Amino acid sequence: MNGTIDLNADLGEGFGRWQLTDDEALLASVTSANVACGFHAGDPLTMRRVCASAVSHGVRIGAQVSYRDLAGFGRRAMDVPAPELAAEVAYQIGALELFARAAGTSVAYVKPHGALYHRTVTDEAQATAVVSGARLAGDRLPVLGLPGSALHAAAEAAGLPTVLEAFADRGYQPDGNLVPRGEPGAVLTDPEQVLRRAVSLAEDGEVTATDGTRLRLGARSLCLHGDTPGAAELVHAVRQGLADAGVTVRAFA
Amino acid sequence: MNGTIDLNADLGEGFGRWQLTDDEALLASVTSANVACGFHAGDPLTMRRVCASAVSHGVRIGAQVSYRDLAGFGRRAMDVPAPELAAEVAYQIGALELFARAAGTSVAYVKPHGALYHRTVTDEAQATAVVSGARLAGDRLPVLGLPGSALHAAAEAAGLPTVLEAFADRGYQPDGNLVPRGEPGAVLTDPEQVLRRAVSLAEDGEVTATDGTRLRLGARSLCLHGDTPGAAELVHAVRQGLADAGVTVRAFA
Amino acid sequence: MNGTIDLNADLGEGFGRWQLTDDEALLASVTSANVACGFHAGDPLTMRRVCASAVSHGVRIGAQVSYRDLAGFGRRAMDVPAPELAAEVAYQIGALELFARAAGTSVAYVKPHGALYHRTVTDEAQATAVVSGARLAGDRLPVLGLPGSALHAAAEAAGLPTVLEAFADRGYQPDGNLVPRGEPGAVLTDPEQVLRRAVSLAEDGEVTATDGTRLRLGARSLCLHGDTPGAAELVHAVRQGLADAGVTVRAFA
Amino acid sequence: MNGTIDLNADLGEGFGRWQLTDDEALLASVTSANVACGFHAGDPLTMRRVCASAVSHGVRIGAQVSYRDLAGFGRRAMDVPAPELAAEVAYQIGALELFARAAGTSVAYVKPHGALYHRTVTDEAQATAVVSGARLAGDRLPVLGLPGSALHAAAEAAGLPTVLEAFADRGYQPDGNLVPRGEPGAVLTDPEQVLRRAVSLAEDGEVTATDGTRLRLGARSLCLHGDTPGAAELVHAVRQGLADAGVTVRAFA
Repeated sequence: MNGTIDLNADLGEGFGRWQLTDDEALLASVTSANVACGFHAGDPLTMRRVCASAVSHGVRIGAQVSYRDLAGFGRRAMDVPAPELAAEVAYQIGALELFARAAGTSVAYVKPHGALYHRTVTDEAQATAVVSGARLAGDRLPVLGLPGSALHAAAEAAGLPTVLEAFADRGYQPDGNLVPRGEPGAVLTDPEQVLRRAVSLAEDGEVTATDGTRLRLGARSLCLHGDTPGAAELVHAVRQGLADAGVTVRAFA
Repeated sequence: MNGTIDLNADLGEGFGRWQLTDDEALLASVTSANVACGFHAGDPLTMRRVCASAVSHGVRIGAQVSYRDLAGFGRRAMDVPAPELAAEVAYQIGALELFARAAGTSVAYVKPHGALYHRTVTDEAQATAVVSGARLAGDRLPVLGLPGSALHAAAEAAGLPTVLEAFADRGYQPDGNLVPRGEPGAVLTDPEQVLRRAVSLAEDGEVTATDGTRLRLGARSLCLHGDTPGAAELVHAVRQGLADAGVTVRAFA
Repeated sequence: MNGTIDLNADLGEGFGRWQLTDDEALLASVTSANVACGFHAGDPLTMRRVCASAVSHGVRIGAQVSYRDLAGFGRRAMDVPAPELAAEVAYQIGALELFARAAGTSVAYVKPHGALYHRTVTDEAQATAVVSGARLAGDRLPVLGLPGSALHAAAEAAGLPTVLEAFADRGYQPDGNLVPRGEPGAVLTDPEQVLRRAVSLAEDGEVTATDGTRLRLGARSLCLHGDTPGAAELVHAVRQGLADAGVTVRAFA
Repeated sequence: MNGTIDLNADLGEGFGRWQLTDDEALLASVTSANVACGFHAGDPLTMRRVCASAVSHGVRIGAQVSYRDLAGFGRRAMDVPAPELAAEVAYQIGALELFARAAGTSVAYVKPHGALYHRTVTDEAQATAVVSGARLAGDRLPVLGLPGSALHAAAEAAGLPTVLEAFADRGYQPDGNLVPRGEPGAVLTDPEQVLRRAVSLAEDGEVTATDGTRLRLGARSLCLHGDTPGAAELVHAVRQGLADAGVTVRAFA
């Protein structure tokens, strides 16, 4: 019982002249690619390339949807009215879907980016809007998110599958929430520690909180950050370490 | 032998707070809607609304693709490298396709907007790029354009269907080219005259050039402008006048 | 004791092909023009034209600063970190200042637009950021806003002059706050009523709340909305009515 | 007779989350900073930081104005009508001027970026528009450019000072034009060779063309590229090598 886990990371987060993520290296390690769709990052040419390369690596493609905010990289929460937000989410999925189809596959899931991800943990109106936008793309598009999030509640209410994810490189509070960025222990960078947590999440579905509590998360996907220096190496090390521990790494069913 | 003709117009050319085209009124008269896809105009919410309304009016949806230029409304020619341009065109079609599908139909054709339309009359590299982007969306997407254009040549070379269009409200030079905007006779605003030319184009496939020459255009679609004051009324009058003349107005096959 | 009052309105709120405000007509009636600076509306050519025309009409120029949000017309609150927001505000003022100088004058005040205006009524961090951005433009730039707002508190703390404004065409609650948009009585459209309230605000510094309470506002400037149909006529009528009532209409000192 | 020369480079070419140029390192070596103004790159916070840091390093600030094209990094020529282009150039200079003033200095020159730089070598209408925009900022703003360019002709016609620049890291054709990018010898990367050319340009005002011809350029400023890997080290080496050769490196008078 060594478990099975999906590895997801954000890809294609450049824009024109600017590059951020080492897409080729990440695609060699992850099983699911959260592809930026042009609203916080991700120009069309990059989207096309990443989709084609993902297919050649056997990596699943997900739509990483965002607020329309290139200047803030989608990290600034916005009070977008629900009808606008739903349409913006759908627009992004549709654009990516064309490149996914041209590469021989299809968008396999939706995951909000940055401030939209955090906002939809608790904001029911925006969570419902994101799900509403995703449903325009089809009846069965899975939504990646946190356990207990408003996003997952909205997806379930709308009949969309949900996939729980956990973070091997983020600290957890005893209540199951992430340690906020900026506080000590928010982001873990020691490869050994990240790998141990990844294996524990994959094998036991558990992670240790800041106070030593063992949290039962039951995540089917692990998110690793792709936009930091050395990210590709860390992701590669985790992938390798999981395999060495006998964990099966593959896209969620 | 009263002929059959398609009527197309640009729709959805607002952006957020700004409105330009009277979409509902135009949808009551045209048979094909060139829907702005967000690069020169057309926010996602408007795209969604126009697609839904087009379906309820039985109007065909086309992707009105453009340079990325909100500030210039897509009217400023740009030297976009072919791979970028192809991906940008595909991105726009994909976004619109999602709203078309959600409304129960599919994008039925592609037509470049503004400066991209004019540039691809002669620029082979950009024409090929537009067609290449359209082909990412599927093997059989018709391309609307001018007779003899580089765009149509590229479409034919790529195996895409072409649909010739003509302008009932623009003047023609004896060589078949449009009278450039800014010159006398470039834009016709007399409803009677526009209607006469529309009927002639539909029945005989001909239009009279500035020197009196009868030009044989053989267009299957007539383009009417939707973004000028009184546009909706003019389009309505042409639709009615064509019907009165016994012309069948319907989307091209 | 007929009083003196400034009339301000938002101008230049088009963007490229899209027009919204009837700038020429408004400039014939107002004494202060809140000129859009490109972040929610306002392309450079429009900014240049409005500044030149304002000077020829003897109208004062103010910087109508906004979140960076063309798609939402600056009406969606954003969690912009203070250093970014301050720099974005300064950027907008600087751009407008060039056109003001080229027209022979200088930016005379700052007023936040839309969601930023409402947010800085209570959000101290963003209010301080806006003031910090304004101070980069100079030590003595007045800040237009609501009595008791965080924005005015921040301006006072920073040594910037504040100018209170009131709305002749908006309903007031007994506590002095505006009736929220969407509720009955939020926006007044009867020209007679708007004029009566304008005169009362100019002569007595008072306005009647929804429950009949007389509120003492002491505003030195009246804001009239310029982006609605018929706005220019209403503004003209108020300007004329104030003059007929013996009120001196001129830019605040 | 060791000569005097200015060293200029492009700075502040990130946008939000994306960074490109190593601004701090470059500011330690150059004497003139071409600061991106937000149209092809350069967010307001970066502009503010670069201006403050430039002043602390004693480096002169220039406005690196561009087409409005974040997606293309300003490298795609655009047919912008002259009045629009002039206003867009002025807008950018104005925004930068505010940050320059806040840092205790003023914008000292204007230099077009990318496609606008190349277009205005020959396009008289656009060259005149750029100069017209620069003149809105003041009567005496120097314009950096190539000898014989339409830009310099327009500046002279308008009474603006011109400053000739040369490229130590680009190949020259016998007629004095640059070897086009993509052709062999277009970009020189050998530090020794670049330094030799820099010294020759500073001491003698000459550079050797691809066929061995000695070209007399008479440039008062040398442009070095700041957006390539290792750029800061190369710029530093050139600065040091010029000093070692007895050349005085300082901003143009």
